[in-house]
Amino acid sequence: MSARPAPWSLDERRARVLLARSAEPYDEKVQALVADLGPVDLVGHALRDGRTPGGVGLERLSARLPRAAELDEDRVCRTLGARLLVPGDAEWPVALDALGAPPWCLWVRGPLALDEVGERSVAVVGARASTAYGEEVAVRLSFALAERGFTVVSGAAYGIDGAAHRAALSADGPTVAALAGGVDVPYPRANADLIAQIGARGLLLSETPPGGAPARMRFLARNRLIAALAAGTVVVEAGLRSGARSTAREARELGRHVMAVPGPVTSVMSAGCHEEIRAGATLVTDAAEVAELVGRVGADLAPVKRGQVLPEDALPDEQRRVWQWLRPRSSVDVDELVVRSGLELGEVLVALGELEDLGLAEQLLDGWRRAPGGGHGAGGRRGRG
Amino acid sequence: MSARPAPWSLDERRARVLLARSAEPYDEKVQALVADLGPVDLVGHALRDGRTPGGVGLERLSARLPRAAELDEDRVCRTLGARLLVPGDAEWPVALDALGAPPWCLWVRGPLALDEVGERSVAVVGARASTAYGEEVAVRLSFALAERGFTVVSGAAYGIDGAAHRAALSADGPTVAALAGGVDVPYPRANADLIAQIGARGLLLSETPPGGAPARMRFLARNRLIAALAAGTVVVEAGLRSGARSTAREARELGRHVMAVPGPVTSVMSAGCHEEIRAGATLVTDAAEVAELVGRVGADLAPVKRGQVLPEDALPDEQRRVWQWLRPRSSVDVDELVVRSGLELGEVLVALGELEDLGLAEQLLDGWRRAPGGGHGAGGRRGRG
Repeated sequence: MSARPAPWSLDERRARVLLARSAEPYDEKVQALVADLGPVDLVGHALRDGRTPGGVGLERLSARLPRAAELDEDRVCRTLGARLLVPGDAEWPVALDALGAPPWCLWVRGPLALDEVGERSVAVVGARASTAYGEEVAVRLSFALAERGFTVVSGAAYGIDGAAHRAALSADGPTVAALAGGVDVPYPRANADLIAQIGARGLLLSETPPGGAPARMRFLARNRLIAALAAGTVVVEAGLRSGARSTAREARELGRHVMAVPGPVTSVMSAGCHEEIRAGATLVTDAAEVAELVGRVGADLAPVKRGQVLPEDALPDEQRRVWQWLRPRSSVDVDELVVRSGLELGEVLVALGELEDLGLAEQLLDGWRRAPGGGHGAGGRRGRG
Repeated sequence: MSARPAPWSLDERRARVLLARSAEPYDEKVQALVADLGPVDLVGHALRDGRTPGGVGLERLSARLPRAAELDEDRVCRTLGARLLVPGDAEWPVALDALGAPPWCLWVRGPLALDEVGERSVAVVGARASTAYGEEVAVRLSFALAERGFTVVSGAAYGIDGAAHRAALSADGPTVAALAGGVDVPYPRANADLIAQIGARGLLLSETPPGGAPARMRFLARNRLIAALAAGTVVVEAGLRSGARSTAREARELGRHVMAVPGPVTSVMSAGCHEEIRAGATLVTDAAEVAELVGRVGADLAPVKRGQVLPEDALPDEQRRVWQWLRPRSSVDVDELVVRSGLELGEVLVALGELEDLGLAEQLLDGWRRAPGGGHGAGGRRGRG
């Protein structure tokens, strides 16, 4: 306890940590006082006077600060293998300064350097109660983004968040989890192993001090950090009132790219994504489209999506079985194709529709034939694989 | 045959029918000549001189016109119960005049008046090789649009088109099918019953003369009629090279509303829809959103989608079983909830996530509790369903 500094020797770093220990980052009254007085004077007045020079009472802060001041924060960090960052530190991410209420300080834990994350990073967020579809999409997207060298930022929650982090780690890519509780508080507990992995190979960060519980309002405050740290935010699945939509809203307000993945209109877990797209978010279906929007101009152009015009021998089995019985000039009727191909009527009709879409078959009044020139001379339209 | 008029007695109506019988509507050379000379002079020159006054050869037209002139079109129409429309007729839809190459004439068959269709109509189009998902969406959408008094316009093809017409008929709503072949040529044959129903209760139309085959290029030409007749076009499912996308392109060029329904990004039959949305089409998920865009200003506003905040006793079974074991203040951990609720761990976690989304549960560090005020005082946020 003898190391406890006198209040009047406060430096900015220590004032910020004491603030983070004594008030919530979403407390608008404290935010306004910090904006007005700065952290050093605010904490100084709270410790000395219990009120601001303008007469605003600081009872709550005054009551909490002494206990916070007893903590040896250096020792806490050493014990946890964490680092404490404040604005002005080399590792402080300037991206956070765009926030209306930037964090007073951040605790980070892991080998990544936080200031190097922002340039090429995508937040992949979504519902906790995700569907198998949403998780599959989150995995595909994050894996491919990590392979392209993008850092995947998310919140380590159940569902989409966890799938995104896991996929980035699988691709040996960098990944950052912004936590609502302290960097030493793995939450949800079912993701404790994942969170430990992110801390060992990527980066955990939080503005909640070590030991702090992941309370509800801290989740909402945490979402603004995810939005600010990433160059763009992709919502993979979200109910209409999902927290992921608050991340998208923060990203929009910060002028970051906001993207959403569509899904079945019959799925309530895609309803929030569809509303985001209707409100202006960019619809994205794969990592190439995300990279094109978020990445370096010119370096990350998504290939134009075109229909595949495959050579006939590369057709899927059912299409090939139908196609081989079509003639170049005269028509063959559907009944004959059913007999020849050995397929069901429905399968033949589907295959014919697909062949026509591929430019390989043509409908006539009395049946079908091979389309003139179909599948040839169309090499320039060939899909990417 | 004695009724055959001399070439020099051609009126506009007869000239247009002869043109439709002798040239294809997508023949740009003939289109240019019609734009230049008008139908009467063009047909007159072809019959008399075999060339235009400017010296353009009309051999092909000249060779075909005499045989067309032998037909008694009135009798054809009477036999089929069809009507022949040309611009200037009361039933001619003015919407078609927006086309760069309007049809020379139209054959229509059915009780609807074509000129009354345009005001409140939506084209619902999509892939022939549709999925169960796409058909379900087409049915929901078209049924609800028909119930709201919108005419559903489509192409009577397999898949989405057929589902759209059938749903409109089920709702006792008006529906119009634009055919690529003649109005007496039911194609595809598997939809013959459906096409007969549309002719009996709605309207069939075609610019291909009776008896004409539904050839490939006629499908593409037909798509522009669908786009022009409807106030807006919704693509429900489409592969990247689907014909439905040509309808959307025509609609866009005509300044009509273009909409697309999203689907799983893993489905090739939604890939064309997603590309349309990325290119500017409006994402729509239900009939209310379509009606809002296409309908009368003010009369068809879609309700704002909000998350449902249900009273606790209206919760789905699993959520209710979890919620009843949560306490208002102190936390209950997940293991206890598994034991109490009799649900699996995964089910409990999903239910907790949903309860939190509903504002009814709150995560703490060591478990869950009922959210303070959750589900109460939130009546204004209650969903519509």
